[in-house]
Amino acid sequence: MDPQRTEVSTLGEFGLIDHLTKNNEIKNASTVLSVGDDAAVMDHFGKQTVITTDMLVEGIHFDLMYSPLKHLGYKSVIVNLSDVYAMNAHPTQITMSIAFSNRFSVEALNEFYEGVYAACDKYNVDLVGGDTTSSQKGFIICVTAIGEVAPDKFVTRSGAKKDDLICVSGELGGAFLGLTLLEREKKIFLETKGVQPDLENQDYIVGRILKPEARRDIIEFFEEKEIQPTSMIDISDGLSSEALHICKKSETGCVLYEEKIPINEMARQFAYKLELDPTACALSGGEDYELLFTIGQKDFDKVSENPNISIVGYITEKEKGSVIITKGGNTHPLTAQGWNALK
Amino acid sequence: MDPQRTEVSTLGEFGLIDHLTKNNEIKNASTVLSVGDDAAVMDHFGKQTVITTDMLVEGIHFDLMYSPLKHLGYKSVIVNLSDVYAMNAHPTQITMSIAFSNRFSVEALNEFYEGVYAACDKYNVDLVGGDTTSSQKGFIICVTAIGEVAPDKFVTRSGAKKDDLICVSGELGGAFLGLTLLEREKKIFLETKGVQPDLENQDYIVGRILKPEARRDIIEFFEEKEIQPTSMIDISDGLSSEALHICKKSETGCVLYEEKIPINEMARQFAYKLELDPTACALSGGEDYELLFTIGQKDFDKVSENPNISIVGYITEKEKGSVIITKGGNTHPLTAQGWNALK
Repeated sequence: MDPQRTEVSTLGEFGLIDHLTKNNEIKNASTVLSVGDDAAVMDHFGKQTVITTDMLVEGIHFDLMYSPLKHLGYKSVIVNLSDVYAMNAHPTQITMSIAFSNRFSVEALNEFYEGVYAACDKYNVDLVGGDTTSSQKGFIICVTAIGEVAPDKFVTRSGAKKDDLICVSGELGGAFLGLTLLEREKKIFLETKGVQPDLENQDYIVGRILKPEARRDIIEFFEEKEIQPTSMIDISDGLSSEALHICKKSETGCVLYEEKIPINEMARQFAYKLELDPTACALSGGEDYELLFTIGQKDFDKVSENPNISIVGYITEKEKGSVIITKGGNTHPLTAQGWNALK
Repeated sequence: MDPQRTEVSTLGEFGLIDHLTKNNEIKNASTVLSVGDDAAVMDHFGKQTVITTDMLVEGIHFDLMYSPLKHLGYKSVIVNLSDVYAMNAHPTQITMSIAFSNRFSVEALNEFYEGVYAACDKYNVDLVGGDTTSSQKGFIICVTAIGEVAPDKFVTRSGAKKDDLICVSGELGGAFLGLTLLEREKKIFLETKGVQPDLENQDYIVGRILKPEARRDIIEFFEEKEIQPTSMIDISDGLSSEALHICKKSETGCVLYEEKIPINEMARQFAYKLELDPTACALSGGEDYELLFTIGQKDFDKVSENPNISIVGYITEKEKGSVIITKGGNTHPLTAQGWNALK
């Protein structure tokens, strides 16, 4: 039994909502009306409104055996904000709906919402609504994020042009390696009850899977430097899959260079330890929530200045296909194995 | 085995999304970018944006034994549109996220989306995004609806004032009675396999629970007659519960008259057959998706003209409490037993 456990039933549905939203602060002037009515009201004069939604299901997208609820709350917001940034927009509001079975206590939901509010605070986003309900089994999370962007500044997946440079923010492959480590330690724990997981020196990769961040800094950099990417997507399914999305939507091909793909040194060492190819982890591992975007050649100098951006290749004509050139100089077609193929 | 069954796995996730959205038409000029990117873009110059979200979980909110998937798709949109109308706003876009186990075929999802698109068509709403994912068990639906309203025209739950008239659209209690009938027939069916359900002459109440409508006509009537309700809420948990919400938020009391509560004659007859009190069904049965609102006395004549609106009581000072006066002339406090209490 938990040291302190309050049954959700003692609060009732409305009591629970009051409880979970009582510290909810309004940060944007555009949030005219927030939680507590049938709907929330937003004012977006002269701006375009962006909306995106994602559902996270226990046993499919997360495992509560090694995902702390606070991290899960944080991450469920981040994955949606990442989609808003991928439009070159700024997130302003979210709604959060959850369904949970009676094995969840108020304390457990508190922890989850602590993470939700931490993400909202960090990214200056208002939680403006949602739904809380029961499930027969498991924990289900559905977040919708709203963002704003100046008219005609939003960036889709379909604008890449021949000779555009292909860029990636941050470093790739870490989240997949973190997941691999957690799955391995879970297996050992289940087989040998009582053995504590060995996560020493693996903070980086574990953090990448459990508590990712969204790349607001990149969008702010574009504004500051007056860069308008020609296409953009967030990397949730691996670099290969996302590059192919851009090529398909833009009706182009692409060339990526293996040696240019940014991989964190700790992630690389861990991959070697597991006899995995770090490049494969970057290409096909998912959940890095970095941004993949293309820019015109005129913006090469501006982008080169930013240490958080790597130029990994360029756009070609559709007929040339989508390929990667290895460190050894060989050319291979890009394939969208996706996230699951490596599991 | 179904006569025709296509496994979702044969399409893949993106194939499935393409498949499910290929007939998705844009109806609002404000929908700048719809399904197919990380987020959707909307343009709301000079209007306020309304957003609401609802989650529906199999085994909690619906039973696939008697809910046809097409009706379920329709209803999952309607319950969200009803929340938008309850703000005195017009819905313009929705996002639809679903999680489903591998027992669902493409044909089953087609049926569901047929209902979704039917509701979108009828209410002139664009489906602009969503997420499709797997669940370990059961079918989970999460809809977010966006709407627009002229600045300062939106109506909350908190504006009711002493002496305002309390009004209800349509008729109440039918959905609860429909659910009661379906649950009864399900029980008989399970106990005596092969017995077909007896739903004869019960189209009205069965329709109320399986395929509700949202009250767009009432919002249009307000516009036409230049009526600004002082408070409004949609009736999803029964008249009692919703009236108490308005009183709590507006810091008022209220008087309702039993004899004024609109109850359909077929519903009333069916209630008598089950030895249920029709008034209790209206007060505490849920899912009618009618509108409960208050108006200033100056609007009495305008509202009286509309046969779809009943004046059921008036707002009092908070100190007088929230009460109902029965046909026999007795006064009882209103209690929010809610939907589950009658089950």
